[in-house]
Amino acid sequence: MSMGLEYETLNENVKKVQYAVRGELYLRASELQKEGKKIIFTNVGNPHALGQKPLTFPRQVVALCQAPFLLDDPNVELLFPADAIARAKHYLSLTSGGLGAYSDSRGLPGIRKEIAEFIGRRDGYPSDPELIFLTDGASKGVMQILNATIRGESDGILVPVPQYPLYSATISLCGGSLVPYYLEETANWGLDVNQLRQSVSKARSNGITIRAMVIINPGNPTGQCLSEANIREILHFCYQEKLVLLGDEVYQQNIYQDARPFLSARKTLLDMGPPMSQAVQLVSFHTVSKGYWGECGQRGGYFEMTNIPPKVVDEIYKVASISLSPNVPGQIFLGLMVNPPKPGDISYLKFERESKAILDSLRRRAHIMTDGFNSCRNVVCNFTEGAMYSFPQIRLPPKAIEAAKRVGKVPDVFYCLKLLEATGISTVPGSGFGQKEGVFHLRTTILPAEEDMPAIMESFKKFNDEFMEQYEDHRGYSRM
Amino acid sequence: MSMGLEYETLNENVKKVQYAVRGELYLRASELQKEGKKIIFTNVGNPHALGQKPLTFPRQVVALCQAPFLLDDPNVELLFPADAIARAKHYLSLTSGGLGAYSDSRGLPGIRKEIAEFIGRRDGYPSDPELIFLTDGASKGVMQILNATIRGESDGILVPVPQYPLYSATISLCGGSLVPYYLEETANWGLDVNQLRQSVSKARSNGITIRAMVIINPGNPTGQCLSEANIREILHFCYQEKLVLLGDEVYQQNIYQDARPFLSARKTLLDMGPPMSQAVQLVSFHTVSKGYWGECGQRGGYFEMTNIPPKVVDEIYKVASISLSPNVPGQIFLGLMVNPPKPGDISYLKFERESKAILDSLRRRAHIMTDGFNSCRNVVCNFTEGAMYSFPQIRLPPKAIEAAKRVGKVPDVFYCLKLLEATGISTVPGSGFGQKEGVFHLRTTILPAEEDMPAIMESFKKFNDEFMEQYEDHRGYSRM
Repeated sequence: MSMGLEYETLNENVKKVQYAVRGELYLRASELQKEGKKIIFTNVGNPHALGQKPLTFPRQVVALCQAPFLLDDPNVELLFPADAIARAKHYLSLTSGGLGAYSDSRGLPGIRKEIAEFIGRRDGYPSDPELIFLTDGASKGVMQILNATIRGESDGILVPVPQYPLYSATISLCGGSLVPYYLEETANWGLDVNQLRQSVSKARSNGITIRAMVIINPGNPTGQCLSEANIREILHFCYQEKLVLLGDEVYQQNIYQDARPFLSARKTLLDMGPPMSQAVQLVSFHTVSKGYWGECGQRGGYFEMTNIPPKVVDEIYKVASISLSPNVPGQIFLGLMVNPPKPGDISYLKFERESKAILDSLRRRAHIMTDGFNSCRNVVCNFTEGAMYSFPQIRLPPKAIEAAKRVGKVPDVFYCLKLLEATGISTVPGSGFGQKEGVFHLRTTILPAEEDMPAIMESFKKFNDEFMEQYEDHRGYSRM
Repeated sequence: MSMGLEYETLNENVKKVQYAVRGELYLRASELQKEGKKIIFTNVGNPHALGQKPLTFPRQVVALCQAPFLLDDPNVELLFPADAIARAKHYLSLTSGGLGAYSDSRGLPGIRKEIAEFIGRRDGYPSDPELIFLTDGASKGVMQILNATIRGESDGILVPVPQYPLYSATISLCGGSLVPYYLEETANWGLDVNQLRQSVSKARSNGITIRAMVIINPGNPTGQCLSEANIREILHFCYQEKLVLLGDEVYQQNIYQDARPFLSARKTLLDMGPPMSQAVQLVSFHTVSKGYWGECGQRGGYFEMTNIPPKVVDEIYKVASISLSPNVPGQIFLGLMVNPPKPGDISYLKFERESKAILDSLRRRAHIMTDGFNSCRNVVCNFTEGAMYSFPQIRLPPKAIEAAKRVGKVPDVFYCLKLLEATGISTVPGSGFGQKEGVFHLRTTILPAEEDMPAIMESFKKFNDEFMEQYEDHRGYSRM
């Protein structure tokens, strides 16, 4: 018997995938937008879509790389500063045929070298360009590594809950098993290694072989920055359990407090010395989509491998080569990100001014948002220490939960849909990220323009407090 | 027990993947290049890497989209023509936040609309933008569709042999079974439907469920253009057997003869009328990497679905959303490709002149290369009617085959390695694409600069004829 593409005959793993960031809420928001309603898309960390302007210098360089004939134009200096022109020539010299030629499937060797130098400066330990692969955004890298790792449903991947659903979706797609470990909301979304051990024991007793552990630092959706002690505990755990650690560090430039600066898993590992520094397998991810660059649409990312055997690196290279090469403009953005203008360069002051304005504003917005949520009835929210999200807990009254059940909705989906209809604010329900039983959240980015933020938070508060008024029976709430 | 990323514990499907286009020959060529040897990379259809200049107009538009601040600069018209400026404003208006913002996971609605209009003009039947998905190059689209289709090793995909190894590699990666159907070299690489039926019967008797059939038109690596009669036979076969047809039409603009112009599978299907036109499932692929654009490094592609059920389209959308969005600059290139300058536009004449120069030269190169191969001892080659490749048959003498076996090499790999070492010409052995038992080929692109072509073919002939002289025993050759 033969069959074409019918729902019934699709790959079951495809059908199992859930991806809430662009799920029901996003689809409804898109519909409302088509109908003319003003929507504030805070469902996805997409800064430029909410008005953030691109940094000038990298855009000048990439524009020149796209139009190399401008470099011979006598008028080019009327539109482009000399350091952007020089940098464009430099990056074009790293390609073999400009932006229109496929690069090596791992990315341009010259860009990988610049990234290795950046990692070396950041961590204080040299990095090998041969172990850095460029990708069309960090998500694609995560998918490559999980696909290489997972053999079937008895392979388990430890994922924090709440988590960014890239992980749950990709594990479903690869046919593996997600093994959750819960972050502690009351301990500022910290990780308790004892709780982690319990998750592992439980999974093993169900026949699961744990293969890898994911950390997201700074946290998405939770916004916390991991402490050095916590990262060391995690590395120790991976060492004992022989797990690959996947370090999602795409928000490493998004830090909104000074007590806990970003610390890479790689630096922490190498600081610990042998035997651990030579044994723990680590793959670290980074991107141009986040930070203060926010160049999501360019799709530039990389991963760096530590202690991964050469034969495995070769296999990952082979699979990467099927899709020939990551997009080359995105690779140039990565080069620029790890090698921004330096003091004394013509563009330095402007670049610094633009960067600082974005980061300072994000820091202020993190405060406005967290404070705003905490001023609302039945809402509590940890401070967004890093990344781009607030993840407030919404203590839904039992009557709201019942009302949701009556219309066949998960309670937080019910709440977020009502929020969307009332205010145009498009968020993602906490159930899309995972949360403890009976506890409800939503995720919103901190990315709306700073000047719009007070009005948005006021509109949220008005909706929320009325919602609570409507559903509260003045006897009890859902448990914290 | 837990295990990290060791070769032994990798996903078996990953280990099974073979991808010759960037396989042993490419790796050896890269090594030789590092050692200072001049390499002519004809292993992959990468025109800009071999000196093809980008078309000016699209690069002007994308450069302006990357640097939108130039649009406010009073000097912009000194560097950019007015129609490029207008077009950049148009494409920026289709984005929500410029090139730095994620688009919808299917691509920008405005670009999908322009593609639908192009398809409508090409085929004479309107196309629905909702059924067009943009991708980071056509390969990514093929991978998405095959991944949605394949449930396990008893799902078979009909693939032409010789084939472009994207298909074999992706089917391996998805854990499915490749069911080969052989193209007839002596019938100008045509397809024999009786032979196709035999392949299907044989696969079914082995317990395989055939799900889909791939055609590559114009052919890669074989260079033929399918006739309307042949496409109709194929569609009829897919109708009878209830197979999805995957139409790889990425070379639709690369046609080097006038007897058989490109004809899309979609137009042919819709011309056939009901019931077939409403029943046969078709997914067609296209890209900015090929044609006379050759913008490989930009990674812009799309697929269009015909007669695919809405629930399946939704599932494919869901999976696409995991990696958020295809790169936005590549989407703009697609818009420009389907909507080039029109007569009367400022840039029209220049664009036409550049396009025609590239296509005319490719046509001449197709002749130089085919004629060159046919002048060599023990080499026969069908004319490259379309696409970017020549696929000559190399009749290896038995002594050469024995010599290859002694060093543990497949005979055509042995030949291609010797060719590489002697001349710097980096090709791909026919075994990487599949070929009949005991018959040997190589694939080369027709992309080296036209002025270099005679010297390259002379260098090839010198190597080949000496090789044949060395290994011929003047009694017999390998069978044709």
